[in-house]
Amino acid sequence: MSGGFSTCRSVLITGANRGLGLQMVKDLAKSNERPDRVFATARKPADAKELQDLARSNSRVHIITLDVNSQTSIDTAVQEVTSLVGNEGLNCLINNAAINITGELETVTADNMMKVFESNAVSPLMVTKAFLPLLRAAATRGSGMGIHRAAVVNMSSGLGSIQLNWGPDFTFMAYTYRTSKAALNMLTRCLARQLEAEGVLCMALHPGWVRTDMGGPTSLISGLDLHQGHAHV
Amino acid sequence: MSGGFSTCRSVLITGANRGLGLQMVKDLAKSNERPDRVFATARKPADAKELQDLARSNSRVHIITLDVNSQTSIDTAVQEVTSLVGNEGLNCLINNAAINITGELETVTADNMMKVFESNAVSPLMVTKAFLPLLRAAATRGSGMGIHRAAVVNMSSGLGSIQLNWGPDFTFMAYTYRTSKAALNMLTRCLARQLEAEGVLCMALHPGWVRTDMGGPTSLISGLDLHQGHAHV
Repeated sequence: MSGGFSTCRSVLITGANRGLGLQMVKDLAKSNERPDRVFATARKPADAKELQDLARSNSRVHIITLDVNSQTSIDTAVQEVTSLVGNEGLNCLINNAAINITGELETVTADNMMKVFESNAVSPLMVTKAFLPLLRAAATRGSGMGIHRAAVVNMSSGLGSIQLNWGPDFTFMAYTYRTSKAALNMLTRCLARQLEAEGVLCMALHPGWVRTDMGGPTSLISGLDLHQGHAHV
Repeated sequence: MSGGFSTCRSVLITGANRGLGLQMVKDLAKSNERPDRVFATARKPADAKELQDLARSNSRVHIITLDVNSQTSIDTAVQEVTSLVGNEGLNCLINNAAINITGELETVTADNMMKVFESNAVSPLMVTKAFLPLLRAAATRGSGMGIHRAAVVNMSSGLGSIQLNWGPDFTFMAYTYRTSKAALNMLTRCLARQLEAEGVLCMALHPGWVRTDMGGPTSLISGLDLHQGHAHV
């Protein structure tokens, strides 16, 4: 995530209370080319002690309460960010918040399919829609496509790739998680097509299988790898 | 849909009250290689006059009440089909029932995203799970993969293809419908992987843009084309 931030003034990251989201906030806050403002959002910031400590020691980090599944909460967060960035807008929105509920063929339920789809696909779309005026404001300056202008980054997963879901090697078969990330990939493609002309870059990233609370202890990439830039970001 | 039905004894089609589903029932019922039983399901069979007429004049057509969004309704339909096919099982399940709610970027709501995902992706998965014992029973006979043994056919759409969603030509941008069909494609791939070893074929079909109630009057393929085998099935 290094390089190119000299003209990126603001980044917002959802799900920044732990895992990948928290690590991105840490890295952005101390980068040599750090943005002026890093908006770190969490559903319950009071429970995110590490994030609170970081914000106390670094004035660039702003904690914003955001439950991505609540339109009211989204609208309030947009107002809060708008009051801080004004006409400058928002350069980069990272839709990182996501959940997983185990859903193998034998155990998957309709309710769990719906819950994971809501958090992992519907909410990134609703959050993007709500922050679009701020992203468009930032996109009016500069040329080309990138975070120096305006970008939406959706944290996806290789597990959302239909093409890669074949053969004996790829065994993790969560119908919940896989369908939600395939849907996220689709809506990222839709957004990329629709917003390209306005200078808003939209992309999906596969971060690799990272040792977070969600990834679990057998994951292939540790937080240390991430810090050293070894993740497949 | 012709050929190979000589040993396919039973087919179940969801959403058979109109459109593609109704047409498939008609074609199957009068085919020279027709299956012994065509289970035509609908949420409200009483409203499906054309289907009722067809069932009255053709003893092979069995109308089954099935609301694909209701687990209770699914379970009842499975019991009903089981009582008719017994140990023979079910050779072919066609998950055809689907909805569309307009959802362009400006107008799409979380609620509509959820509703379309439920009907177009979650329900096909739940219906397939429920009929799996009958499909597995049918798969115990014969060799190879196909409807002579056991198959799940999910009616998808080219609009669910991420790869095809690029360039200026493909303009229909329903976030609701596209994400639901991308998710359906993913779960079809998951099912295909998991059930291949048991002899249950799983596939997704793109029927083309057909002139049905959903497709609308400007669609490229008419019911007549379908009847004559011109559809991209």
